[in-house]
Amino acid sequence: MGLVVALSGQVGGAKLADGLARLRGADLAAIVNTGDDYEHLGLHFSPDLDTLLYVLAGIADPAAPWEPEGESHAVYEMVRRLGGPDRLRFGDRSLAAPLLRTAWEGADRRLTQITADMCRRLGIAARVLPMSDEPVRTHVLTDDGAVPFHEYFTDLGCEPPVRGFQYAGADLARVTPEIADVLDSPELEAVVICPANPYHTIRPILEVPGMRELLRKRGAPIVAVTPIVGGKALKGSAGKMMAELRHEASAKRVALEYLRLIDGFVLDDVDAHQAEAVRACGIEVLVTQTVMRTVEDRARLARAVLDFAAEIRERKRAEAEQT
Amino acid sequence: MGLVVALSGQVGGAKLADGLARLRGADLAAIVNTGDDYEHLGLHFSPDLDTLLYVLAGIADPAAPWEPEGESHAVYEMVRRLGGPDRLRFGDRSLAAPLLRTAWEGADRRLTQITADMCRRLGIAARVLPMSDEPVRTHVLTDDGAVPFHEYFTDLGCEPPVRGFQYAGADLARVTPEIADVLDSPELEAVVICPANPYHTIRPILEVPGMRELLRKRGAPIVAVTPIVGGKALKGSAGKMMAELRHEASAKRVALEYLRLIDGFVLDDVDAHQAEAVRACGIEVLVTQTVMRTVEDRARLARAVLDFAAEIRERKRAEAEQT
Repeated sequence: MGLVVALSGQVGGAKLADGLARLRGADLAAIVNTGDDYEHLGLHFSPDLDTLLYVLAGIADPAAPWEPEGESHAVYEMVRRLGGPDRLRFGDRSLAAPLLRTAWEGADRRLTQITADMCRRLGIAARVLPMSDEPVRTHVLTDDGAVPFHEYFTDLGCEPPVRGFQYAGADLARVTPEIADVLDSPELEAVVICPANPYHTIRPILEVPGMRELLRKRGAPIVAVTPIVGGKALKGSAGKMMAELRHEASAKRVALEYLRLIDGFVLDDVDAHQAEAVRACGIEVLVTQTVMRTVEDRARLARAVLDFAAEIRERKRAEAEQT
Repeated sequence: MGLVVALSGQVGGAKLADGLARLRGADLAAIVNTGDDYEHLGLHFSPDLDTLLYVLAGIADPAAPWEPEGESHAVYEMVRRLGGPDRLRFGDRSLAAPLLRTAWEGADRRLTQITADMCRRLGIAARVLPMSDEPVRTHVLTDDGAVPFHEYFTDLGCEPPVRGFQYAGADLARVTPEIADVLDSPELEAVVICPANPYHTIRPILEVPGMRELLRKRGAPIVAVTPIVGGKALKGSAGKMMAELRHEASAKRVALEYLRLIDGFVLDDVDAHQAEAVRACGIEVLVTQTVMRTVEDRARLARAVLDFAAEIRERKRAEAEQT
């Protein structure tokens, strides 16, 4: 068995990456969105990285996987009491990673190294790779101008209609040596785009210069799992954003966002009727149960996705041999 | 009634300042040692300032006044789990002030302003004034070289013999406008040097250029309270340090540290026999119970000290009129 790469972010991405990690252990590398990172109280918060760490380490709160289980809020309450900002209610345990990250980045360590150290300490075998060591910040374009995603999400409650996105800093970001290594590996077997918002979770990863080319370099099949089920995002605001961008809020439309990148697309059972439309775009389709309610669901979906990728790989190889 | 200024630091300093604050409220200004400040995890910890804040706000843990009551350690445990430094077990609530202080200093606010804001939020009427907005760091000279006080205290457990002290940065520190204001006030009635280590708590305050002159400028009596009772420091390592510096570990010797600065010295009842030796140095003496076990003890000692200062002031005035 070879190497599997997952593009991950948000809770859905963490869950599928966890399913893949359960099957592949150290042979999974997750490339993680950092476009939603933000600074608060001078600390570097990286929600997608931390969510994935908690989930992979098995310490995430089942009901709120973006924070460790048993979270308390003593620091926040005291910060508030001392007159600090109170708009963002952060947890005590959730503060540790941003605190360490900020201190270590201040000591000139790369985000990739810092994340690898945390993984090792948490007993995570899979490689967790930030999409870049340079900061990229996704901005939401609204009628009142560009707003950093974090601010759009927390301060504005995702209310203003979305007119587009900007990925500030992406032009200066570089693919890390660690990501180049896994994507250039002869062992690369499949790339899985996890179910996550295409605009502010997956797209920032693809905006790192050279990333798209590297993802296709070894010819491994690229398979995306829909974040939209029955016309709605399972979590988050993908559906709302698609409508505001004047797109149909459908799984099919997400597949189009990945056109010329993916070989296969995984639709949920309830959207089986969209399969033909996706196939018409030259994308292979798997229809299965994509909603991950239990840990078993994660591994089951991961297995289905990898089997689907293996089929695509076989078919590609057969076609290549015929010509 | 006029203005009272206290030089404060450590637990003893916080307790007497609290006693003075109970009598004088907004007419107390505490000038606080910051020579023991340190950086940990990129955050600016200021133990003497924070201890005083917790004590004055009435939220200090009675058994450990350097932290707020009901302290927990969730952040620390998670930092440790993530591979962060574990030598210093900080509390969750105790992290809030350093976190805010660092963020606000990063936004170019002065330590004095930051501290004033925290006091206002905590309902503290007294003025709490850091000895300087510039960093001064007390170093302990040992046979193996100079060690920052915090490191000497935590990492070395105060073990290496003390050969002397250095106050790094003191030459570049300046008296703040707020301190200059209170010390230059015609209302200034008395200056109280609280019971605290003379070497690393009181001395750094005196090392700020211009501080000694300002303390004497208005001619208000300066009265020090002994931190040594019965040949031992009540808390901390003053006694041990005095022995290593080849001084007698006695209250009398502490009075000598303040020679040419103080007008009066407060001895504990158990050291009444040292009164004559101190008076022989031209320093007036009050003998009373100096150990503050209860909140009532704090106010009682504060009242005794202020009465003593008033006597000295009267005597000085009478002498001045005679000549």
